[in-house]
Amino acid sequence: MGLAENQLSFDLVESWLRKNPDAMGLKKDGESVFRELALFQDYHGLPAFKNELVEYMAKIRGNKVTFDPNNLVLAAGATSANETLIFCLFDPGQAILLPTPYYPGFNRDLKWRTGVEIVPVHCWSSNGFRIKMSALEDAYQSAQTLNLKVKGVLITNPSNPLGTTMTREELNHLITFAIAKNIHIISDEVFAGTVFDSPGFISIIEAAMDRRLENENPDLWNRIHIVYSLSKDLGLPGFRVGMIYSNNETVVSAATRMSSFGLVSSQTQYLLSNMLANKKFTSKYMKENQKRLKRKREMLVSGLRTSGMECLKSNAGLFCWLWKTILYEVGLNMTAGESCHCSEPGWFRVCFASMSQATLQIAMRRLRDFSERSSCSGRIGNKISSQQQNMSSLRRKLLSNWVHKLSSSECDEQHR
Amino acid sequence: MGLAENQLSFDLVESWLRKNPDAMGLKKDGESVFRELALFQDYHGLPAFKNELVEYMAKIRGNKVTFDPNNLVLAAGATSANETLIFCLFDPGQAILLPTPYYPGFNRDLKWRTGVEIVPVHCWSSNGFRIKMSALEDAYQSAQTLNLKVKGVLITNPSNPLGTTMTREELNHLITFAIAKNIHIISDEVFAGTVFDSPGFISIIEAAMDRRLENENPDLWNRIHIVYSLSKDLGLPGFRVGMIYSNNETVVSAATRMSSFGLVSSQTQYLLSNMLANKKFTSKYMKENQKRLKRKREMLVSGLRTSGMECLKSNAGLFCWLWKTILYEVGLNMTAGESCHCSEPGWFRVCFASMSQATLQIAMRRLRDFSERSSCSGRIGNKISSQQQNMSSLRRKLLSNWVHKLSSSECDEQHR
Repeated sequence: MGLAENQLSFDLVESWLRKNPDAMGLKKDGESVFRELALFQDYHGLPAFKNELVEYMAKIRGNKVTFDPNNLVLAAGATSANETLIFCLFDPGQAILLPTPYYPGFNRDLKWRTGVEIVPVHCWSSNGFRIKMSALEDAYQSAQTLNLKVKGVLITNPSNPLGTTMTREELNHLITFAIAKNIHIISDEVFAGTVFDSPGFISIIEAAMDRRLENENPDLWNRIHIVYSLSKDLGLPGFRVGMIYSNNETVVSAATRMSSFGLVSSQTQYLLSNMLANKKFTSKYMKENQKRLKRKREMLVSGLRTSGMECLKSNAGLFCWLWKTILYEVGLNMTAGESCHCSEPGWFRVCFASMSQATLQIAMRRLRDFSERSSCSGRIGNKISSQQQNMSSLRRKLLSNWVHKLSSSECDEQHR
Repeated sequence: MGLAENQLSFDLVESWLRKNPDAMGLKKDGESVFRELALFQDYHGLPAFKNELVEYMAKIRGNKVTFDPNNLVLAAGATSANETLIFCLFDPGQAILLPTPYYPGFNRDLKWRTGVEIVPVHCWSSNGFRIKMSALEDAYQSAQTLNLKVKGVLITNPSNPLGTTMTREELNHLITFAIAKNIHIISDEVFAGTVFDSPGFISIIEAAMDRRLENENPDLWNRIHIVYSLSKDLGLPGFRVGMIYSNNETVVSAATRMSSFGLVSSQTQYLLSNMLANKKFTSKYMKENQKRLKRKREMLVSGLRTSGMECLKSNAGLFCWLWKTILYEVGLNMTAGESCHCSEPGWFRVCFASMSQATLQIAMRRLRDFSERSSCSGRIGNKISSQQQNMSSLRRKLLSNWVHKLSSSECDEQHR
C-alpha cells in the first residue's frame, strides 16, 4: 500500500505483446533491426518514439492540446527529467516553491546534486489542500526572508499524494503568480493518464493556451515546462522512460545535451514506440485502466468507511489520502504524510493500484480490527487511564520511529 | 572514421539472439516475466545481471582479479557512471588530473554539472604518450598555483584516443603518486575487452592487488574506482549499460542512490543478463572480436603506411592515433587531436571498427590521393611559392574552422 505502482491493467499490455512479438523481438516487417538499435545513441531519441509520445500525451489530455516532438526531451524516468530541468533553470542556492503535501523523493530529485532549496507552499485540509494565492505569496515572502531568490514553482498535477487534479482557478492563480514574480512553472504530470473521475484533468499547457499566453505573454509561455513518464500511466517504471516538454528552445537544447546522463535504452524505445503506435490499443488501455482504478478506489474507500475512516475526495492517481492516527501496529505499509511534508499531522497515502483483491481484503480486516480496538480503548487525547497513557505514549514513540524510518526509506528507495 | 563504434562482431550477437529468443521475449522457462520486469525499479539492479557483469569483467581481465557484485553500481552508460563518481568524490571547484590526449566528452561528463576543474597531465609522443611521474607532479603543481585542491586522477585504460594499454610501470607511478598526494584514482576501462595484441591489459585493480594494497594500504584501496560499460566491448551503446566498481562502501552506497538519475531499463538488464550467462558465447565473442579488431587495424595501418602515414603503435581500442597534418580536403571524418586536448598538434584519431571493407578502401584511396598531392606541392613549412603559401594559409584557416567544428560537434554529440 506504500508504493505507487499500477498493476491493474498489465493483462492488456501482455495481450498486446503476445499479438505483436516483433516489437519485443526488435523486428520490422519480419527483419531484425537489432543492429541499428544497438548502435543508436542519438540523444534526441528515436524520432518514431517521440512522435508517438507526443500523440499519446495529447490523447491523455483529451486532444485539447498538441505537442511538437521537437520540444520533447527523453530522460531515464521522471526522476532524471525533474533533476535535468532544475539543472537547466536554477543556479545553486536559488529556491523552488513546492505545494505541500508533496512526493518525498523531490528532496532528492530537486535538491541533492543541484544545490537548490525547496520552499514549501503550505496547503491545508480546510479547503481540500487547494493552492491558495495567499499561500504562494507567503512562501515567496519566506524565501525572501531567507535571502533566497525564487526561480520557479513546481506542481504535481494530478497530485501525488492527494490523488486530486488541480482546478482551473488554481492553475490561473499559478499563472498570474508566475507572471507577477517572473518565475518558471514546472508541472509534473506523470499521473495525467490516471484521471478516472470528474472533474477532468487540465494540464498547465491547456490553461496557458486558454489564456492565449503563447501570443499575449510569450515570456511566461517559454517558462512553462512539463515532466511526464510512462511509469505510472502505463505501469512501466522498470523501463525508465521519462521526458521533459518545454516551449523554451534553450531549455530543450540544454536538456537534450544533459540527457546523455540518462538516456532511454533504444531497445525500450523501439518496443514502446510500436506499442503506442497502436491507437486502438492505447484508447482501450486508457479507458479500461481508468475504469479499474475507479473501481479499486471505491472498494478501498468503502472498506475504510466501514472502519470509520475517511479519505480525501479524489479523482486521479493510484492512491487515497487518508486521515487517521494509524499506529504502527496495524501492520500495513503506507506512506506517512510527514514524509510528504504535509503541513498537518495524521495523514497517510494509501496506494490501491498494486493490491490484489485478497490483499485488499486483508488490509481492510486489519484496519477494521485496529479501528475497533482503538475505539474500545478510547481515542488518544480523551481521558484514558494512566496505564493506557503510558502505552499510548510508547506507541507514539514507536510510531515516530516508524514514521521516521518510513520517511527515510521512502527517500532512500526513491520511488513514487 | 570519427565515431568509436564497434560493428565488427554483430553477427555473433545476432546469431546468439536467434538461438535464444526468450531473452529478448522476456521469458523464463517459456513463461513471460514481463510483469515483474516492468515493475522492477530497484536501483540496485537485477541481481542476476550484476552477477553476470562481475564475472564478465573478471573474464576480460583474464580472471586475474575477481569482483564482488555488491560493489557494482549500474548507470545509464559510462557517461553517467563517470559523472556520478565525480559527484560522489568531488566538491565543486576541486580539481581532477587528466592525462592528455583524452576523450573530448570528459569536459562535459566530469565538469559540466559538477563544477569540477580538469587539470591536464601533459603527455608527449617522444615516449609514446606514456604518463611520467614528473608530468603528474607538474600537473599537481599547476593545480596548486591555480589554488585548486586536487582530489583525484582519472585515466582511460586502454586509452581513448591512443588505443594503447598502460604499462605496469605507469600504473605503479600512478599508485605511488595517489598514495603520496592522498587522492582518488578513477580508471575508465570501457575498452578493456578490445585488447587484441600484446602487451596484455593490466587493470588498475590488478596492479593494486599485486601491490597488496587491500591489506597494506587499505586507504588507497578504498580510493580506487573503475568505470566500465558494454557500449564498446559488446558494441551496444544504444542499450545504455554502464557501471561503477568501487571497494569503497560509502561510494557504492552514494552512487547507488544517485543511480536513480540514470537507471538501466529492466528490459535491457534481462536480455543482457541472459546473454552474458552464456559463457561459451562470451568466450567466443571476446576471442573473435579481438581477432577481427586486430585484422582491421592491420589493414588500416598498412594502407596508411602505403600513403606515407604512420600510426602510434597500439594494441587495443577501436581506433588508431595518427600523426599527419591532414587537411579538411581529404573528405574523411576523423577526430582531431585538438579536441582530445592533445598537447601536440597534428594528431588524429581514426576509428576502424565501424568501417566496412568498401569504406576502408575508399578512405585509403582518398588518403593516398591527398598524400600524393601534398608531397607534389611540397610539405607545409618547406620552401613553397607565395601562391602556395597563400593557399596553405587559407587551408590552415579552413582547417582550424573545421577542427573547431569537429571538436565542438564531438562534445556536442557526446559520443566516444
